[in-house]
Amino acid sequence: MPDAILDDISHRRYNALRGTWILVSPHRTKRPWQGQQEGATQTSLPEYDPSCYLCPGNKRAQGDANPKYTAEEPFVFVNDYSAVKEEQADYNPPDQDGSISARLLRAESTTGKCYVITFNPAHNLTLADLQPGQILPIIRAWTRIYTAHLSPKSPLASVSQPTTLAPASHDESITAPKAQYRYMQIFENKGAAMGCSNPHPHGQIWTTTSLPEEPAAELVQLSKYRREQGGAHLLEDYAQLEAEKQERVVYENASFLALCPWWATWPFEVMVVSKKHRRALVDLSEQEKTQLAEALQEVTRRYDNLFETHFPYSMGLHQAPLEGTNDEIESSHFHIHFYPPLLRSASVRKFLVGYEMLAEPQRDITPEQAAARLRNCAGVLYRKNMA
Amino acid sequence: MPDAILDDISHRRYNALRGTWILVSPHRTKRPWQGQQEGATQTSLPEYDPSCYLCPGNKRAQGDANPKYTAEEPFVFVNDYSAVKEEQADYNPPDQDGSISARLLRAESTTGKCYVITFNPAHNLTLADLQPGQILPIIRAWTRIYTAHLSPKSPLASVSQPTTLAPASHDESITAPKAQYRYMQIFENKGAAMGCSNPHPHGQIWTTTSLPEEPAAELVQLSKYRREQGGAHLLEDYAQLEAEKQERVVYENASFLALCPWWATWPFEVMVVSKKHRRALVDLSEQEKTQLAEALQEVTRRYDNLFETHFPYSMGLHQAPLEGTNDEIESSHFHIHFYPPLLRSASVRKFLVGYEMLAEPQRDITPEQAAARLRNCAGVLYRKNMA
Ligand SMILES: O=P(O)(O)O[C@H]1O[C@H](CO)[C@@H](O)[C@H](O)[C@H]1O
Ligand SMILES: O=P(O)(O)O[C@H]1O[C@H](CO)[C@@H](O)[C@H](O)[C@H]1O
Repeated sequence: MPDAILDDISHRRYNALRGTWILVSPHRTKRPWQGQQEGATQTSLPEYDPSCYLCPGNKRAQGDANPKYTAEEPFVFVNDYSAVKEEQADYNPPDQDGSISARLLRAESTTGKCYVITFNPAHNLTLADLQPGQILPIIRAWTRIYTAHLSPKSPLASVSQPTTLAPASHDESITAPKAQYRYMQIFENKGAAMGCSNPHPHGQIWTTTSLPEEPAAELVQLSKYRREQGGAHLLEDYAQLEAEKQERVVYENASFLALCPWWATWPFEVMVVSKKHRRALVDLSEQEKTQLAEALQEVTRRYDNLFETHFPYSMGLHQAPLEGTNDEIESSHFHIHFYPPLLRSASVRKFLVGYEMLAEPQRDITPEQAAARLRNCAGVLYRKNMA
Repeated sequence: MPDAILDDISHRRYNALRGTWILVSPHRTKRPWQGQQEGATQTSLPEYDPSCYLCPGNKRAQGDANPKYTAEEPFVFVNDYSAVKEEQADYNPPDQDGSISARLLRAESTTGKCYVITFNPAHNLTLADLQPGQILPIIRAWTRIYTAHLSPKSPLASVSQPTTLAPASHDESITAPKAQYRYMQIFENKGAAMGCSNPHPHGQIWTTTSLPEEPAAELVQLSKYRREQGGAHLLEDYAQLEAEKQERVVYENASFLALCPWWATWPFEVMVVSKKHRRALVDLSEQEKTQLAEALQEVTRRYDNLFETHFPYSMGLHQAPLEGTNDEIESSHFHIHFYPPLLRSASVRKFLVGYEMLAEPQRDITPEQAAARLRNCAGVLYRKNMA
C-alpha cells in the first residue's frame, strides 16, 4: 500500500498525465444507495440478428449492404452519421482582432472522417468473449487505418510495416484523407449505460483536423516531463514504478501493464500502458500486438467477472497525433484508457454529477482497492460456467 | 444568428471561461436514436412522505430528527455521509524532492465540511414549482453559509450585510469552521438521471481546504482577461455582448441574464450571470437577490415545460473563493451553471461518453437553437394546466 492512511482519509491525488487533481473519499462507500439502478443487460442474444445493421450481409439504414466479413478481417466503413465530414461549406472566422466579440465568441471549422469498425461477425460476442487471437485482427485493422491517415512528414510514416498489415479484404473505405488530419481517436462505447445503441461488438474512429482537448492536455504533460527529466518518458517511468510496487497492477505481461492509475477517476478505471516507450500503434512489433490483445482480453474478462454482468465502459487509444511537431510525436506514449461507470454492483453506477461537474471529480473506493478486486477476478469468464 | 453557416457545419467553439474547446456537429441530430431511454419521473408525490429523511419532523438515518422548518427558513444540516470531514488523521505527503515517485504519486490531505440544505418543506415541490418569493429564502441561506465561512482577511468579509441575513431558526449547524477553508461549492443534483436519490427539493454545499479544478480553471481565465483588458471583467463584457445580440438569451431582468453560453457543452446548458461585476453572494443587494430568484424560477420552469417533465440537471454556483489572493477575489464573477442531460425528449439524453471522455466534448444542437426553444417555453408550468 501507499501510506495506509490514504485508505481512510479524504485526500486529493494529482493526475500527472493530465495535470489535474481528483478528490478521493474512501469512507464514502458506507453510504446507503437509494438512487437510480441500471437496467439489466441482455444475456442471450442471437449469433446473427437480421435487424442489426452491423451483422455480416445486412443492409444499413443509409448505407450499402455489409460484406460477409469474418473474424480475421473486421469490416470498416464510414459512419453513416459522422460527427465530422470530409467536406463542408467554408467558414471564415472573424479576425482575431482583439475585439471583445472576437475574443469571447471564437469558433473554427473542423473537418474529418468517422469510421465504424466491427470487432467480430458474431452479434453476441464482446471483447471479453473473444480469444486474444481474435482481438489481434482488430488491433491490426486499427493500425492500418492509423497508418493510412499518417502525415507523410511524420517520423512515424517511415516505420516499416510487417506484411500482416497489408490491406485486407474490407479496407475499401479506408481511403487517403482529403485533408491532412491532426488526430485520430479510436474508441469503443460498450453497453446501454454508455450510450451504445447496438450490442454488436464494434468501435468507432473519429479523425479531425483539430487536436482534441484530452490528448492535447496529455501531450502538454508528457512533453513537459520529457523536457524536465532529460528526455525520460513520463509513462515509461510510471509503468516501471507501478511494476515495482504492484499495488495498482491488475495484469502484466512482457510488454504491457494493465493498472488502476494512481489518479483514476472512475471506480474501476484501468489504463493499459506499454512498458517501453512506443509512440503509436505502428511502433508495436507483432509480438507486442499479440501481448496487447492478451491485455485487452484480460481487462475485459475481469470486468465482466467483477459483477457477473456485461460490464459497460468507454475505452479508447491515446497515441501520437497524425501530424504534429517532432516534440509532440516523440513525447507521445501509446496507452489505452478504460472508463467504466459501475461502482457497487451490476446495477449501481457512480454518478459524476453535481460536485464533479461543477468543482472536481470525486471517487469513493481507492484505486488500490479497485485493483485488488480486479486482480481477484481472473479465471474463466463467468458466463462460460453457466449452464 | 452568428455566421449562419455554423448552423450547418461541424466546428469547434472556444470556452473563454474555461479555456477549452468543444466540438459542435449540428447535422447530427438527424441520427435515429435506438439507445437507452430514461425512466419516467414520478409526477404525483405526496406533500409529506413519512419515510423521507428530509421532510420536516422526520428522523434521519444517522442523524437527529429534523425540525419543523418552514418555506421561509430552510433547514441546513451537516451531511451524514460527507465526502470531506472537519477532522481526520494526519497525512504527511513525502517530500516533493523531484524523485519520480514524488512526481508521479502525489497526494494531499483535504478537510472540509459538507452541508445539505432543504429548499422547501413540501416533499413534492421543485424550484420550478416555487414562486420567486419562495426561492429568495434559499438564496439568503446560501449567503449566510457562505458568509459564515469567509476568511476574515477576505475583502468580502467587510461587505455589510442586510438584516435579512441575520441568523435564522435552523442555522445551528452553520458553525465557524475548524480550519480556514478555501472554496465553497453550492450545488443541486436534481432527478434520478443525475444521481439524486431523494426527490425532496434540496441542495448540497461542499466546502474544502483546496480550490477545486473547475473554479480554478475559470479563475485562471478570469484573471488573465482582467490583466490583459485593463481591469475589465470577462463575464461582464460577455453578458453585455450577449444582451446586445440576444441570440443566446433565454431570459433577462435588470440584474441577471439567463443564456445558453456560446460554448455550452450540454444540449440545454444554461448560465445565469450577473450583468454587473459581483464577486460573490455577499455582493448582491436585496433587489439583486430577488431578481436572481426570478431568474432561477424562469430557467427551471422553462426546463420543465420543454419536454413536459421533471427536467433533471446538476446546477451550481461559482463565486469568489472563501480565502484567496486579492486578484482571485476581485477577478471572480458570480454566476450559476445548469448542466441538464436531456437532448431529444423526456426520455432521450445526451451521452457524454467515448469521444467526449477520451477526446473532446461534442454537442449536437447549437446553443442558438437551444436558446430559441427555451425562449418559447415561457408561460405557466405545464403541470399547472393539468387536471
Ligand atoms: O451526495 P449524494 O446525493 O448521495 O450523491 C450524488 O452527488 C454527489 C456529488 O455530486 C456525487 O459524488 C455522487 O456520485 C452522486 O450520487
Ligand atoms: O456515435 P453513437 O454511438 O451513435 O453515439 C454515442 O457515441 C458518441 C461518441 O462517443 C456520443 O457523442 C453520443 O452521445 C453517444 O450516444
